Amino acid sequence: MNNTAVIHGNFLYTPDKDNFVTLKNGYMYLRNGRIEYLGNKCPIENIPVLNYQDKLILPGFYDMHLHAPQFNQIGHGMDEQLLDWLNKYTFAEESKFVSASYAEEVYKIFADELVRNGTVGTAIFSTIHFESTNKLAEKILAKGLRAYVGKVNMDTNSATTLTEDTKISLQETEKFIQKWRQNKFVKPIITPRFVPSCTPELLQGLGNLAVKYNLPVQSHLSENISEVNLVKKLFPQEKYYLEVYDKFNLFGETPTLMAHCIHLSDAEISKIAKRNVYAVHCPDSNLNLSSGIMPVRKMLNAGVKIALGSDIGAGHSLFIPHAIVRAVQLSKLANLADNSCTPLKLSEIFYMATKSGGSFFGKSGSFEINFTADFIVVNVPESQKNKSLEEQLQNFIYHGKPQDIIKIYVAGKPVN
Amino acid sequence: MNNTAVIHGNFLYTPDKDNFVTLKNGYMYLRNGRIEYLGNKCPIENIPVLNYQDKLILPGFYDMHLHAPQFNQIGHGMDEQLLDWLNKYTFAEESKFVSASYAEEVYKIFADELVRNGTVGTAIFSTIHFESTNKLAEKILAKGLRAYVGKVNMDTNSATTLTEDTKISLQETEKFIQKWRQNKFVKPIITPRFVPSCTPELLQGLGNLAVKYNLPVQSHLSENISEVNLVKKLFPQEKYYLEVYDKFNLFGETPTLMAHCIHLSDAEISKIAKRNVYAVHCPDSNLNLSSGIMPVRKMLNAGVKIALGSDIGAGHSLFIPHAIVRAVQLSKLANLADNSCTPLKLSEIFYMATKSGGSFFGKSGSFEINFTADFIVVNVPESQKNKSLEEQLQNFIYHGKPQDIIKIYVAGKPVN
Repeated sequence: MNNTAVIHGNFLYTPDKDNFVTLKNGYMYLRNGRIEYLGNKCPIENIPVLNYQDKLILPGFYDMHLHAPQFNQIGHGMDEQLLDWLNKYTFAEESKFVSASYAEEVYKIFADELVRNGTVGTAIFSTIHFESTNKLAEKILAKGLRAYVGKVNMDTNSATTLTEDTKISLQETEKFIQKWRQNKFVKPIITPRFVPSCTPELLQGLGNLAVKYNLPVQSHLSENISEVNLVKKLFPQEKYYLEVYDKFNLFGETPTLMAHCIHLSDAEISKIAKRNVYAVHCPDSNLNLSSGIMPVRKMLNAGVKIALGSDIGAGHSLFIPHAIVRAVQLSKLANLADNSCTPLKLSEIFYMATKSGGSFFGKSGSFEINFTADFIVVNVPESQKNKSLEEQLQNFIYHGKPQDIIKIYVAGKPVN
Repeated sequence: MNNTAVIHGNFLYTPDKDNFVTLKNGYMYLRNGRIEYLGNKCPIENIPVLNYQDKLILPGFYDMHLHAPQFNQIGHGMDEQLLDWLNKYTFAEESKFVSASYAEEVYKIFADELVRNGTVGTAIFSTIHFESTNKLAEKILAKGLRAYVGKVNMDTNSATTLTEDTKISLQETEKFIQKWRQNKFVKPIITPRFVPSCTPELLQGLGNLAVKYNLPVQSHLSENISEVNLVKKLFPQEKYYLEVYDKFNLFGETPTLMAHCIHLSDAEISKIAKRNVYAVHCPDSNLNLSSGIMPVRKMLNAGVKIALGSDIGAGHSLFIPHAIVRAVQLSKLANLADNSCTPLKLSEIFYMATKSGGSFFGKSGSFEINFTADFIVVNVPESQKNKSLEEQLQNFIYHGKPQDIIKIYVAGKPVN
């Protein structure tokens, strides 16, 4: 594709969380990877039109929390509880990434799978290993996807094979930052695994790097009760878990993603909102690890920005429509327990998976003017063609499969 | 395939609910559609062996509650509550099945989809329409699957387009019974939609037919609170919902399937166990319609037989591994609320989806001697080939897709 293009088809997106905007038989004009026009007429003459008549054109999905090195362990040990699962499966698997060639093999398939699932942007945890993390960034870049890739930091309370020397951990992180910070598509992100696996010295060093290079941060927050209690024991002087991150400039000082956010007081929810931190909702993971249900309605009411994540390997599917459905389902259960928590509407969660997640990358995830042209083209079954575009979307989200996605574009370029 | 065959590969099944039995590089000898041998050696000389080396061979899935006419509405209106969903979507869609040609078109695709998803046996609700129900039975038979197909009965409290004359409802039901009762694969089942849509006269007539022809029964029980209250209002003389069915010989007098079974007292659970009624767990449907969580652990402890169902279109996936995962997930949430309800193990739910559901068809759903040879052949990704067979199964259940199923056999014959 040139640096200009016109796309023809049926468009659907969520400029705000409460409504779908649909456009039947519309035209989208792209220039230099961004949207310049969306409307009923072809805005330019004598330009080839990419004709996706009868297809649904949607913003691509943004998967804002996942562990790429856990790809091969998906589904394993789900009868175990959290700590056994980590020790028997996760730490054993992540330790294999000391081998860059193993990493290359796994991450190649992983990047293929992101594309197949219609994911255009991600925030990814790698492992502690510099070379392997580099391989991950390269594989994502080769696909032309957007990503924040984090070399994970762990220097305490971890498996011996995954415990770093504090100084080396910081050095390797800085080396990775310097290698990738100028890239337009794949960028570094500061990634302490979570409070229990980091010493204060490491957290301090990571906060310094975040500020020095003005880099975003990702980690885990209040996923389960024993984790919350452990943090309380490790940092008795801090009232709340999130204060530990905050103390070290890792909580909203730069753009920040915090996965899970389940066990929270009202005061903590207010602080997440105030610091503009994104809470990343990973509903399948929270079910699989018996973590609980994120108080999404309460957090939305408090003004917290929420994105969606697959969280593989604790989650088990890279197909973000599965996460959308699960988030709706869990909100219905939350409503049964407390009817002041109204169930989430499909538009609210579609918005999380597109424009909200996309906003971490800038103007992405919507079909408004000047947004990046990151979108997917979805085949519509014969039986759905006489339905409204919104019903076609409902059918795709609930019953669609990755193979219904026939094309994926990032910055106006097709991705394979 | 002849009436004898040998299958070679890696086998996994659950003769009881607590353990997987695995056999690596095994041989299964089939004769006249049944299993005569499973072991380490090829039992017969000079017989061609179907070689599925490195593949996983599993019992096929039994989907014991679903509404075939709702196939085209999957995912529609999931932001609505139950009654609006029924009125705006379900009743409108089911009314279209007055046209046998519409039915033929939908049911052809539906039957293809059952095969694609690895489902070997089903218990299906059709609509009230005789001709369309006939088309459904024909399409399933043409595929070579096992099914109980029910012409639905409704003569009160329903959309006008779906309200039958009581006498005609019973006549058409008997006509359908006579047409299909001798068939070995597709059989009739008595199918009152649920108590609120049937008059006492209709329920009485259906109970008589069940006894007269010794036919099984399927319906819905205690899916949501307002439905339970409505039944109480309609039949104030009965203490419990299930007593209404029981009064009319529709509750265990012949083999009986009752979908959902969520809002139940201990006395009702005991009665379900005592009457040998199968409770059919449909976890996705129960989430999508905000129905609640079936008390599975409690019911297992009380000795209730439990099978699994997709319940499309309130459920949204025909792929039974999705129902298996959801059942595990919901049991983990139930455990968070009440820690006496231990989470369900994967083997327990795999058993429900295979041997327990299969037992409604006789000796089906396991790889024991004399069981019907209903099985699927599953491709194993490269990354999983060095794992245990149990881990390969875990990966397939959590992360597998219908296209990983490369072959499906019913009664020893390949199905396409």
